[in-house]
Amino acid sequence: MPVITLTTDLGLNDHYVGAVKGGLIKGCPEATIVDISHLIPPYNILQAAFTLKNAFTAFPEGSIHIVGVTPTVELDTQHLLIKEDGHYFIGADNGLFSLLFPQKPKKVYRLNIVAQPEFMSFPTRDIYTKAACHIAQGGTPEMIAVASDEILERSMFQATTVGNLIKGMVIHVDHYGNIITNIDEQLFNSFGRNRNFKIEFRHGNYDITEVNKSYSDVPQGEKLALFSSNKMLEIAMNQGNASQLLGISESDTIRIEFYDR
Amino acid sequence: MPVITLTTDLGLNDHYVGAVKGGLIKGCPEATIVDISHLIPPYNILQAAFTLKNAFTAFPEGSIHIVGVTPTVELDTQHLLIKEDGHYFIGADNGLFSLLFPQKPKKVYRLNIVAQPEFMSFPTRDIYTKAACHIAQGGTPEMIAVASDEILERSMFQATTVGNLIKGMVIHVDHYGNIITNIDEQLFNSFGRNRNFKIEFRHGNYDITEVNKSYSDVPQGEKLALFSSNKMLEIAMNQGNASQLLGISESDTIRIEFYDR
Amino acid sequence: MPVITLTTDLGLNDHYVGAVKGGLIKGCPEATIVDISHLIPPYNILQAAFTLKNAFTAFPEGSIHIVGVTPTVELDTQHLLIKEDGHYFIGADNGLFSLLFPQKPKKVYRLNIVAQPEFMSFPTRDIYTKAACHIAQGGTPEMIAVASDEILERSMFQATTVGNLIKGMVIHVDHYGNIITNIDEQLFNSFGRNRNFKIEFRHGNYDITEVNKSYSDVPQGEKLALFSSNKMLEIAMNQGNASQLLGISESDTIRIEFYDR
Repeated sequence: MPVITLTTDLGLNDHYVGAVKGGLIKGCPEATIVDISHLIPPYNILQAAFTLKNAFTAFPEGSIHIVGVTPTVELDTQHLLIKEDGHYFIGADNGLFSLLFPQKPKKVYRLNIVAQPEFMSFPTRDIYTKAACHIAQGGTPEMIAVASDEILERSMFQATTVGNLIKGMVIHVDHYGNIITNIDEQLFNSFGRNRNFKIEFRHGNYDITEVNKSYSDVPQGEKLALFSSNKMLEIAMNQGNASQLLGISESDTIRIEFYDR
Repeated sequence: MPVITLTTDLGLNDHYVGAVKGGLIKGCPEATIVDISHLIPPYNILQAAFTLKNAFTAFPEGSIHIVGVTPTVELDTQHLLIKEDGHYFIGADNGLFSLLFPQKPKKVYRLNIVAQPEFMSFPTRDIYTKAACHIAQGGTPEMIAVASDEILERSMFQATTVGNLIKGMVIHVDHYGNIITNIDEQLFNSFGRNRNFKIEFRHGNYDITEVNKSYSDVPQGEKLALFSSNKMLEIAMNQGNASQLLGISESDTIRIEFYDR
Repeated sequence: MPVITLTTDLGLNDHYVGAVKGGLIKGCPEATIVDISHLIPPYNILQAAFTLKNAFTAFPEGSIHIVGVTPTVELDTQHLLIKEDGHYFIGADNGLFSLLFPQKPKKVYRLNIVAQPEFMSFPTRDIYTKAACHIAQGGTPEMIAVASDEILERSMFQATTVGNLIKGMVIHVDHYGNIITNIDEQLFNSFGRNRNFKIEFRHGNYDITEVNKSYSDVPQGEKLALFSSNKMLEIAMNQGNASQLLGISESDTIRIEFYDR
């Protein structure tokens, strides 16, 4: 019983998701279809990569993950099938896979798609479902794709260090208003070396001087910092919406200043 | 493994969809339940018909499509089971089926429902799930319904032509802000006969003079016209929200003027 | 084929629901997973209890219902497995179960969870999925939990009577804007004894003097009162959004005055 997941910006208001699922059910009725999210902000491959990166490892090996976020599809757009970490990934070669994987995946295939204008407006339905069902039914990548060794690179802004500072940014604001940054626990620990520090945001209007373990380490409505389950530094509020109440949104800058003892 | 799809205005915030799915799982656990959308605007049978029309053909023949959009249910409201194009459809006889099918479906049945006030407030849960499970388990329409040869007609505004003009309207604005009109490709081609033209909207404040093949035929943020995958004329914006940025919404008028050479 | 339902405040925008479903599919691929809602207002155990209470009985006996609404999770938070009415329920001992069941459930178990900070931020994924799969695969509660006979009580505001008045409040506003109160049909009938009455809300700016059977008993756009399918007094508007148009929201007061003949 293969699993096919969907991470798209198709929304939940239209017939689009239904049409994709109909295609999957017609093509491989034995597959289990799971929605990861259809509310990726339109055309936002960074958020698509962030979302799938944090969800796919929960699924069994052999799962097939369709990413339907395709800001531009032109006649020469390549569509990829990737096998990495025991999972399959299908989507456009628009940079999202360079954001999804920490290093270039080893098994990359370009789908054999005849360039036809009628497949360009909705590749998730017209191309990706067919490729997913092929794999779900035990077909090999080589039957529908050719091996390749490059993917379009798009660089994500990485946290940087200068002097006593780590400079990072907000990469995701979740449904609760929790603010997830691109500063990971390893960088924080290795650069910080247990020194005192101050996490500054909103141009220094707010700061936090410790990292907690749990939202409820602080009183209700109080802001805090912690490392989220994906090991990234998160700014949150116990039972509150940090993004709204602190006025912080995606791409905002976060600075951490460390103090020598 | 029969497929039952759901197209409703029940929303995703309440217990309603859960109650419907519980009823289906209890009644026919072997069926595959697929959400087409639960975010049809409340009571809007036109949008329900548009959504299902564009999704149902993706599903295998024999699929059962429940439409749970019932603006008024009175004691004498009829509930229909329709077989058309190899698919089954279940919903209220409130005009939505005349909007769903281009011509009157050949096999129409009225469900044998004892008129009981307690079934009136939630027919999707109390009536349609039972009818769907009956069909899913191989029951015949005749066992739960009587053949009929009429359905409530509700006419949709059709695009019209006068002089050198096609006059149409916006029938749907999708999640991306793409604007779908009721002007189809066939009318455009047969009436237009390759003449030059100008698509006007917002009382002539905007116009477009060509039809493209793909969103990315124009620069990012630029408006364009194209025929969507359902062959209807669509006004869109490459990676932008045309509805918001052009100020166009459902029911707005679209005019196409053709010029003799 | 056991059924596992999900009632959470995880939202639909993030990777959270995907991660939960991945865990369930990995742990018990034979289970049928059903979303009741992921749009419970964040941290709102009252709405979670209301939603699940009105949905769970639709599911077959033996179904397993996960409630993932956990405003505070501390190291000493208990996580419960409850068997009641032939169904299983899994969630935090934060008062929601006292709101879900009219009386204390007979079979209550505390899950054997080693208190670990890394399980505290996301118990739905890290704890509840494992417990649900254990039950789904035929395991007994005793293997993963110890019997207990208390749950955290949180009292819901109950409708009260004084003189000729029933005083209640709004406990839920649904997707259509229908206003559901905590005044049930039995109290209304036994206290009212067929007397004339006036339902007052918005500090007496509006009143209703009869209870109808169906939304369509009144003209379109007109307000009405009726008993909803869960037997609670509901204020609604035929094809309109009563909450928005009357300016009534959760926790608002509703008074019913009865008149002696």
